[in-house]
Amino acid sequence: MSSAKTVTACILVIGNEILSGRTKDANLAWLAVELNKLGVRLMEARVIPDIEGTIVETINAVRGRFDYVFTTGGIGPTHDDITAACVAKAFGVPLIRNPDAVRRLQAHYANPADLNEARLRMANAPEGAELIDNPVSKAPGFRIGNVYVMAGVPTIMQAMFDGLRHRLVGGAPMLSRSISVDLPEGVMATQLAAIQETHGEVEIGSYPYMRLGKPGAAIVLRSVEAAGLAAATEAVKAMMRALGGEPREDPGNGG
Amino acid sequence: MSSAKTVTACILVIGNEILSGRTKDANLAWLAVELNKLGVRLMEARVIPDIEGTIVETINAVRGRFDYVFTTGGIGPTHDDITAACVAKAFGVPLIRNPDAVRRLQAHYANPADLNEARLRMANAPEGAELIDNPVSKAPGFRIGNVYVMAGVPTIMQAMFDGLRHRLVGGAPMLSRSISVDLPEGVMATQLAAIQETHGEVEIGSYPYMRLGKPGAAIVLRSVEAAGLAAATEAVKAMMRALGGEPREDPGNGG
Repeated sequence: MSSAKTVTACILVIGNEILSGRTKDANLAWLAVELNKLGVRLMEARVIPDIEGTIVETINAVRGRFDYVFTTGGIGPTHDDITAACVAKAFGVPLIRNPDAVRRLQAHYANPADLNEARLRMANAPEGAELIDNPVSKAPGFRIGNVYVMAGVPTIMQAMFDGLRHRLVGGAPMLSRSISVDLPEGVMATQLAAIQETHGEVEIGSYPYMRLGKPGAAIVLRSVEAAGLAAATEAVKAMMRALGGEPREDPGNGG
Repeated sequence: MSSAKTVTACILVIGNEILSGRTKDANLAWLAVELNKLGVRLMEARVIPDIEGTIVETINAVRGRFDYVFTTGGIGPTHDDITAACVAKAFGVPLIRNPDAVRRLQAHYANPADLNEARLRMANAPEGAELIDNPVSKAPGFRIGNVYVMAGVPTIMQAMFDGLRHRLVGGAPMLSRSISVDLPEGVMATQLAAIQETHGEVEIGSYPYMRLGKPGAAIVLRSVEAAGLAAATEAVKAMMRALGGEPREDPGNGG
């Protein structure tokens, strides 16, 4: 194992629409890749409904446990947007109308009548929170403590994250290699376990697939240590060749 | 609120590959829709890594809290497949080699030499567990208590779920309507909150979108009560028309 500090994160996807199956979440996969690039290791993700008790309890369960918490969803102008109020409650601080957020909305709505009470709710944030820019539709997200509250609409969430990513402090970046082969994983499993045993600093995963009716597997190796990763990858390739397979290197995902 | 019992579920997606961003989970969205059809309400989903302590703790945190728990992933033949062992630990029972599961694997592998020790691991299950059929690749899942352990490969998971769905007892099925309109949700928010106030038995969600550069929103209404759902839906449509919008009914998702 590496001696570098591991920096961890948890994502909370807030919204009934994901749990009902109406909307497919796109934020988790995107954030997972981006956090990985920054050397921040996503350790858990939870999808929870728009229920105050659940949101408050979940935020308090995870914010002490991970270095960073990112939430998506529930910060719009409608009655079901309750994330800001819940985060304030979780931190035990009042929900206030953030003056800077009000100014951003005022600048956005040319006609003052359009900035109605519902839209002004988007300027609500916990006392002491720092705003997160929203280049797309102006209504900001916010950070309080280690909790980053972002929009649920993927384009807006991504723009928000792009604006705050330079503030995140990652650990050693996780490097990865992925080697696929048209061999059933059951044929490789014993030797793969032995390679894992030898290379404890590398996390080795096996992901089976079917291609043109033939079973195969992608073996994914991840480590913060380049030399160990290279050695374990060579061991995996040699094992595949010895079993009659032809290893193929897959494109990486940011490692 | 309805007096019918609400039957709840939680999904645990187990696997480092989802958290690293390498693989996009497809099981959550599929199960969400199928559970909804059965009148089982998905209340939470968690994505957790292949770490024993996390899996054991999570299973014990959720199995007392929801009527049904469904896990996907981690039941293959390789060293990183630790779900069965973790579930046994969570329930405080021994992990045994299930004789029926061994027979299924023996029938599947024509050449006995192919059923090596790694593949036999796929016959391991907690003592007292009931097997879940795997029509695709034979290695079964299992149920113990209210926890259903299934494969992570979507086609196999879906086949497993199709074989067990008749055993699940749902509550009143959740009905849903979705009405879209090319109006910004901020324009509708105040009246939408009033409709929600009047129709407490209907859960009303607002989901903004941009279409051809113009903002709109889908208003989703869900309820176990058909009459209340119809009334609230008509109120939403009337509100949209009064604001100059043209409501469009979206295809449902099983309600």
